Amino acid sequence: MRIDVKQCAALLKEHDDILILTHAHPDGDTLGAGFGLCRALLKIGKRARVINADDIPKKYAYLYADMPQYDFDEKFVIAVDVATENLLGELAESYAGKIDLCIDHHMTNTEYADALLLEDTAAACEVICKVICELGAEVDRDMANCLFTGISTDTGCFRYASVTPSTMRIAAWLIDMGADNGYINRVMFETKTKTYAHLERLALDGMEFFYDDKVAVMTVTQEMYRVTGSNEQETEALAPLTRQIDGVEIGILIREKPDLTCKASLRTFESFNAAELAKAFGGGGHAQAAACRFDCGVDEAKRRIIEKCGELLK
Amino acid sequence: MRIDVKQCAALLKEHDDILILTHAHPDGDTLGAGFGLCRALLKIGKRARVINADDIPKKYAYLYADMPQYDFDEKFVIAVDVATENLLGELAESYAGKIDLCIDHHMTNTEYADALLLEDTAAACEVICKVICELGAEVDRDMANCLFTGISTDTGCFRYASVTPSTMRIAAWLIDMGADNGYINRVMFETKTKTYAHLERLALDGMEFFYDDKVAVMTVTQEMYRVTGSNEQETEALAPLTRQIDGVEIGILIREKPDLTCKASLRTFESFNAAELAKAFGGGGHAQAAACRFDCGVDEAKRRIIEKCGELLK
Repeated sequence: MRIDVKQCAALLKEHDDILILTHAHPDGDTLGAGFGLCRALLKIGKRARVINADDIPKKYAYLYADMPQYDFDEKFVIAVDVATENLLGELAESYAGKIDLCIDHHMTNTEYADALLLEDTAAACEVICKVICELGAEVDRDMANCLFTGISTDTGCFRYASVTPSTMRIAAWLIDMGADNGYINRVMFETKTKTYAHLERLALDGMEFFYDDKVAVMTVTQEMYRVTGSNEQETEALAPLTRQIDGVEIGILIREKPDLTCKASLRTFESFNAAELAKAFGGGGHAQAAACRFDCGVDEAKRRIIEKCGELLK
Repeated sequence: MRIDVKQCAALLKEHDDILILTHAHPDGDTLGAGFGLCRALLKIGKRARVINADDIPKKYAYLYADMPQYDFDEKFVIAVDVATENLLGELAESYAGKIDLCIDHHMTNTEYADALLLEDTAAACEVICKVICELGAEVDRDMANCLFTGISTDTGCFRYASVTPSTMRIAAWLIDMGADNGYINRVMFETKTKTYAHLERLALDGMEFFYDDKVAVMTVTQEMYRVTGSNEQETEALAPLTRQIDGVEIGILIREKPDLTCKASLRTFESFNAAELAKAFGGGGHAQAAACRFDCGVDEAKRRIIEKCGELLK
């Protein structure tokens, strides 16, 4: 059942002992939405906690710092920024089919939850901001930091075409409420570890171009992690770099998994639908940022995806 | 004489045949401010034009596209985003001592103009927006694109700590007025030429670290331009990369000029004042982004600036 912001707030007020699920391989938006909402629920006197299938990268530690931890048997389960149940990763085993409410901004959402609040915003945290205002929870500095983090990270620091005047105004309001925009943007966008910087140079050195440079493919292998000391968590930042060269319309990052299968992150501009390309391989996402998985190795995945690009570019 | 926004608008209304000067090696903020203000003055029936000492990089062409060109003997001269007269470059020869009005956001402004409107905003274009509103000029799409470009480029796409809620709200309003934020941010931040990408890789490969990695120095030589086919105009984008490695407090980009002297761009975080470092070598700028010139070669400049960093870090 599709619901609006008012109905969503009313539903939250009715329940307690709330468990918030975030998507696997968590990013700033799912975590900011999860912890931001959790802090708001605690503020209005609910018990709530956030869980994730994977480790949370250290740079996000401030999102949950000093947050009271409650242990309880959940009576209401929410998924935030989770388009399909399988994106819950290992949490899907326990919670698939049992999700009471989903708050999301992916228009590809499969409506798996009993109630769905879905808005086509740049970040899930924009929707969460509206819900929190409707809940009447006082927004403090910690909450503002969570919500700003989601908006900033999901828009490439307000860079993408998905940013609307409303996105900018919500971010302005969050800074008013105490969000430390300078610190957050520095940590998320201006800070590279030496190991990541090394990985980035290797990956850029190996970038390949196809179809009159309209398609750029970057590959990250397990061997590159060994050489640089970097890891898959750090690799997400490489995806936007694939479409940065002038003339590139489709940027593809193929990363090799430990079991030698691989995942492709797709980044495009208005002229090409990334979600459509991802869908051809069982994946999904947004029009300009999508992803898919391959059961084969890097070379075979590259061959198949480049072939598909050729068909779609025609 | 220091004036406020109201007085500035009144002054502009009194005059006609207005020449707007922008700073040498023009960036998005000085150009956005110049062409944005020029378009507003044309809109309220004035004759106005913008000049610059150097060539304007091609990516800024949309700022002045379709703008009517007037030829006239100037009766009123304005400098925008120009902290000191020598930053006018070759225009200083003709206009030093003859500038009627300066609109700026550099708190190091030397008050060289007869009237100075100075506000401590993230971008000069923020101040220009206020002046245009006070002038009562209707903001159209072209004007909004100019002003958004200045704000976006001078804040690293809303990334820097200098961004305030007001910066974000002005940007939101400019998108409402038709600014194509997706296009502008793509051109300014998401598009690298192949030659620049090559230069960037070479420069990153050669980055050196000093004082427990607190200082990072990147050097760009004339030889590197020859090898990559890149040029000095493209080099500005390298400056922020110098402070991106975790732990770096002072990032320095030293670029060799054709006459083998050099210029240093300094980027720091809150913990260190870049303008103070630049001042030690006769330069200036903002607290976290400043620049200075050296009459010596790259190696000698590097030695001197690293030595000074050591003193200031103590």
